[in-house]
Amino acid sequence: MRTISSITMSVPFTLHKTCGTSAARAGVLSTAHGSVETPIFMPVGTRASVKSVSPVQLRELGARIILANTYHLALRPGSELIRDAGGLHAFSAWDRPILTDSGGYQVFSLADLRKISDEGVRFQSHIDGSTHTFTPESVIDIQRNLGPDILMVLDECSPYPCTREEALIAHERTVGWAERSRTRFRETEPLFGYEQYPFAIVQGSVYEQVRSASARSLADLDFPGYAIGGLAVGEPREAMLEMTGFTADLLPEEKPRYLMGVGKPEDIVDAISLGIDMFDCVIPTRNGRNGTFYTHTGRVVIKNQQYARDMGPVSDRCDCYTCRHFSRSYLRHLFQSGEILGLTLATIHNLHFYLALVAEARTAILDDRFPAWKKQFFRDYTP
Amino acid sequence: MRTISSITMSVPFTLHKTCGTSAARAGVLSTAHGSVETPIFMPVGTRASVKSVSPVQLRELGARIILANTYHLALRPGSELIRDAGGLHAFSAWDRPILTDSGGYQVFSLADLRKISDEGVRFQSHIDGSTHTFTPESVIDIQRNLGPDILMVLDECSPYPCTREEALIAHERTVGWAERSRTRFRETEPLFGYEQYPFAIVQGSVYEQVRSASARSLADLDFPGYAIGGLAVGEPREAMLEMTGFTADLLPEEKPRYLMGVGKPEDIVDAISLGIDMFDCVIPTRNGRNGTFYTHTGRVVIKNQQYARDMGPVSDRCDCYTCRHFSRSYLRHLFQSGEILGLTLATIHNLHFYLALVAEARTAILDDRFPAWKKQFFRDYTP
Repeated sequence: MRTISSITMSVPFTLHKTCGTSAARAGVLSTAHGSVETPIFMPVGTRASVKSVSPVQLRELGARIILANTYHLALRPGSELIRDAGGLHAFSAWDRPILTDSGGYQVFSLADLRKISDEGVRFQSHIDGSTHTFTPESVIDIQRNLGPDILMVLDECSPYPCTREEALIAHERTVGWAERSRTRFRETEPLFGYEQYPFAIVQGSVYEQVRSASARSLADLDFPGYAIGGLAVGEPREAMLEMTGFTADLLPEEKPRYLMGVGKPEDIVDAISLGIDMFDCVIPTRNGRNGTFYTHTGRVVIKNQQYARDMGPVSDRCDCYTCRHFSRSYLRHLFQSGEILGLTLATIHNLHFYLALVAEARTAILDDRFPAWKKQFFRDYTP
Repeated sequence: MRTISSITMSVPFTLHKTCGTSAARAGVLSTAHGSVETPIFMPVGTRASVKSVSPVQLRELGARIILANTYHLALRPGSELIRDAGGLHAFSAWDRPILTDSGGYQVFSLADLRKISDEGVRFQSHIDGSTHTFTPESVIDIQRNLGPDILMVLDECSPYPCTREEALIAHERTVGWAERSRTRFRETEPLFGYEQYPFAIVQGSVYEQVRSASARSLADLDFPGYAIGGLAVGEPREAMLEMTGFTADLLPEEKPRYLMGVGKPEDIVDAISLGIDMFDCVIPTRNGRNGTFYTHTGRVVIKNQQYARDMGPVSDRCDCYTCRHFSRSYLRHLFQSGEILGLTLATIHNLHFYLALVAEARTAILDDRFPAWKKQFFRDYTP
């Protein structure tokens, strides 16, 4: 038996540079499935598939690490099945890093009739109404079965708005669960011969004192990485950015910081300047499937009549497969006709745009010109 | 101005070999966008997209020539728009050969309130109810705009069943229209600098005498290629094969023969043995999107419970992208979850299967072992 994780929880991150003006950082995440330069955006593949693109297309558009979801996969097809398939990488034919979310957020946003206690959370599947229980321990076990490179511990995600008292209770439960998660993680072994890294999730809603308590308590537990959860759940953009910066400043400098569920391009640029290393969001994929293409000047709503005879690419600054081969006119035709290829081409373009955006930010940080780059981004981009 | 087509209608086909036992043939179609070895199967890209796959995926799975539809494209986005985009190849980023169907079949199967006369056919769009008229001349003009390598002339497709008298009227109208199409074709020029080849369509329903009259009249018009239409419209399989063989025997040996809308793998193998060179059908793509995978032993209905934990490929004899990377278990998960990637992977597999099937048939013909190959196909394959 390998005993890697029972001895230590090593940190899969090297910080290369911090911007002198802002808190922006450039680093590298190192996993058994490859290295990931940060800041990074992680395309969302909830059910072990990034919607409408194949693993080869994902690789070609530049994806380095993708996200899948414990909640969805535990319900269907089940984590034991994926374990028997050799883990998520083998099951879905993606050989670069994978991060799995814990299911905490989904239990609170998707499941029916949830009942939470200190022990864990009981809920009914949104698929078939069957009853399930997630505990900190079971969520570690499930993610041992799934075999992601990075796994998230179970947390209680406060809704927005919530009272300070509610935020405090959720924070305390989240810290208790993180401790139990750490214990279970140390008692168990990776099933596929490579190391996995558990990240803890800071909660606390929009209350600085609660965020602060959460960040400090979790930092004491010495996880390999930290996420900021409970944001992008309906609060104003200003509150999101304020809490992000406030929380990031409290997290250990040498460990990766992941802002969950954020966001729009402008949110990502701002959050990078606040010291965030990792992002995930459904916006580029979901909005792409609705016909919204992101470019450095803003959004292109491809169904608009003005693009009917526009023979230029979505963006003449973009070198993605979509922009190299297809006109706005053709893309509009695909969306007008309901052709599936439209969804694929929009997804390829948007994910490429998001990945190019974070790569540009990284280069700017390394070249000591991040503040100027950020200024130029906001000059060009109309939210 | 180029005057290629006003002087002659050359034949884009070379016959390489005919099976000694059956009427099966191996040849090559030669077009400005490349050569196509026959027998060939043409994936259907009705609205300038083969559903759920990109041009790169199509190329990688082995597609050599694809089909698009005049009826659909004339209605949306309109043939002038596609002309202004530089033709279908540029519009859809497919640089191999394209054949466009005439829209005759679609007017009779999809449009509302159609009114047919010797002049042409008036109909209402199935999309928005707008009124349109197709004449033999306008359908040539539209296909000059679209710029396919091979274009079909307007025909009247008899429904099944129909009386001999109805079949006779449709045949006579089809021949008259073919003559007018030929005249219009000779009076016009290709718009994109490469030669286009018009094919005529034999009608006659299941009546040998009408089929015979149709084939002979159209052969006299000296088209570069011939299609057999009006089959695969509901008649028994035996009647379809009987009419196919009967008609193929009457067509000029040195010209390509295209059996429209056929069919299942077993139909294609039988029709090859009757002397057919070209096929198109929505079965591999449409049934793929319903979760049916074709293999050399028959169909795999991937949603069946028996595949839930089946970690093998759809077919261990297949080297398509899908079979090289994904298990039946993962594919079933995609279909159970409604993931778009399932549609793409099924389409890739099925089109690859169809293309490998006709390629195998061709090799067998060239190697003088087509009858044995066909026997083996039917031994392995359960319809």
